[in-house]
Amino acid sequence: MKEDKILLAHGSGGKLMHDLIEKVFLKSFSNPFLATLDDAAAIENKGQRIAFTTDTYVVSPLFFKGGDIGKLAICGTVNDLAMKGAIPKYISVAFVIEEGFLIKDLKKILDSMVKAAMEARVSIVTGDTKVVEKGGADKIFINTAGVGFIPDRINVSGANAKVGDKVIISGSIGDHGIAVLSEREGISFETKIKSDVAPLNHLVEEMFKASKEIRALRDPTRGGLSSTLNEIAFQSQVGISIEEEKVPIKDEVFSACEMLGFDPFHVANEGKLVAVVKSNVASKILDVMKKNKYGKEAAIIGEITKEPKGRVLVKTPFGTTRILDMLVGEQLPRIC
Amino acid sequence: MKEDKILLAHGSGGKLMHDLIEKVFLKSFSNPFLATLDDAAAIENKGQRIAFTTDTYVVSPLFFKGGDIGKLAICGTVNDLAMKGAIPKYISVAFVIEEGFLIKDLKKILDSMVKAAMEARVSIVTGDTKVVEKGGADKIFINTAGVGFIPDRINVSGANAKVGDKVIISGSIGDHGIAVLSEREGISFETKIKSDVAPLNHLVEEMFKASKEIRALRDPTRGGLSSTLNEIAFQSQVGISIEEEKVPIKDEVFSACEMLGFDPFHVANEGKLVAVVKSNVASKILDVMKKNKYGKEAAIIGEITKEPKGRVLVKTPFGTTRILDMLVGEQLPRIC
Repeated sequence: MKEDKILLAHGSGGKLMHDLIEKVFLKSFSNPFLATLDDAAAIENKGQRIAFTTDTYVVSPLFFKGGDIGKLAICGTVNDLAMKGAIPKYISVAFVIEEGFLIKDLKKILDSMVKAAMEARVSIVTGDTKVVEKGGADKIFINTAGVGFIPDRINVSGANAKVGDKVIISGSIGDHGIAVLSEREGISFETKIKSDVAPLNHLVEEMFKASKEIRALRDPTRGGLSSTLNEIAFQSQVGISIEEEKVPIKDEVFSACEMLGFDPFHVANEGKLVAVVKSNVASKILDVMKKNKYGKEAAIIGEITKEPKGRVLVKTPFGTTRILDMLVGEQLPRIC
Repeated sequence: MKEDKILLAHGSGGKLMHDLIEKVFLKSFSNPFLATLDDAAAIENKGQRIAFTTDTYVVSPLFFKGGDIGKLAICGTVNDLAMKGAIPKYISVAFVIEEGFLIKDLKKILDSMVKAAMEARVSIVTGDTKVVEKGGADKIFINTAGVGFIPDRINVSGANAKVGDKVIISGSIGDHGIAVLSEREGISFETKIKSDVAPLNHLVEEMFKASKEIRALRDPTRGGLSSTLNEIAFQSQVGISIEEEKVPIKDEVFSACEMLGFDPFHVANEGKLVAVVKSNVASKILDVMKKNKYGKEAAIIGEITKEPKGRVLVKTPFGTTRILDMLVGEQLPRIC
């Protein structure tokens, strides 16, 4: 690593975070589970595959249009399990709370965790609470880890994409990032955009009912669609070709990105998934997705190509092609 | 709750933390797994019992005699699984890092996590990293969640203690708390005491080989031996009678506690366990414990009584008896 200190961009979901993972974490923790680089590990016990994942949520502000840190913490971990093809079942919750935090706000957060857990049909089974002195943490951080079970015959990984496969997105991109950003101190602006934060496990179950030929699933959170596609291209050592005009983006998100100088492909989502599926089942899976409330605007946005390996190309409406890179610096710290 | 804000004492492991759990968390998250109040949940899948637990570590300072936050984060979660009778197998690791944190310190922490994981024979299989801006968190917080498998015929819970059972402690109390405290800014004092932080899973396995009649296991971390005993007395609705002079305390810990005005029964441990075992197997289990490096100073310190239900009594060397209460305020914030 060139840097000797942790930078905000090391938490961005983009290039510097991948550097940190590769050059520091994987060096220390090297093992076959971690090395898959998927959002959840698949471990085996007595022939049963168990998915296991963790995420800490440090979003700021805590409450935003469409959700709050509690809903985010449940949905994020549920989604990481679902992206491994697992049925999410059990969630652990661990809080770091700053001294002086209002108990009424804590209760509000717990309520929305319970609501999200009910919708996702997961149980919160174990927990921990740490309190740090005023100034030792910013309000509240929530870690959720999750356990789920992977049904037989399901095998998804970012490393499984094959040439000719289709790439599907479940809906419009950038909603979460723009919704959170619009409520930040100092940069607040008017928007009707709500965070898309939602549990996607039922949508995924329905997709698998339609076909088991889903090769890769990932939710484009930090680092946005661009990081997710680059990860899949890298893990599978394939190219990905995306048609820009097929990617759903709400007008308001588009304008906000123009105003702020963001590429919507880099902006975080919390209720969207990317699926890489075998070409001949793509339209069947798309139909099923459109019937689910979280997949209404699903669209086939591109396909897996042989070259350029590890790269994502975007065809613009003007007939030109650009390379879609991972985010390099940090665009939106503490977006999740 | 009387309070409308979170106090440091809500993270103490003592009375206020139990209030918060009962009146806020259990109210929201109520379910049979959480309601056991054990350190790990036991969930079932296809006849296999899986233990699942989580803890966030916010210890300050990060490095102390005998260990650091990394070793603590692995051992703490390994021990929580072991205290449920499980064989710990898989660990998730999630970091919240303050911008500007030195990468060489991160590497030191990772190294000691790897060492502890090797000793405990667990794999770190999934992870997450968040970076917050300077001042948004104090250096680094680490969450570890853990998954383990509970062998057949093992059934331990704080709710299983029975009248006549013996209470065993695996060694001297208060070492971790005093070691960390001695390196705090503002209150540093000279001591040779090292933290006892250690993975106890192999010790527990050996104990179960000696006998399955172990009813309750718990590691007396935050809140010390006093909280652990009170929890067991409450969960099992029994009394506990402890003979003070049988409880191993190092001279230096004793003096430090006198100087600081602490009750050593309230001071945190990170490499000790309390076992409640059937009376007729107590000496057999004790013998096995003494052969393990983490149980050399194990001792039978008391027994389970019918009355007073939910209370812990300590017989002093002077023939008097005192009620051992849970810590009420906060003695040592950020001890783990």
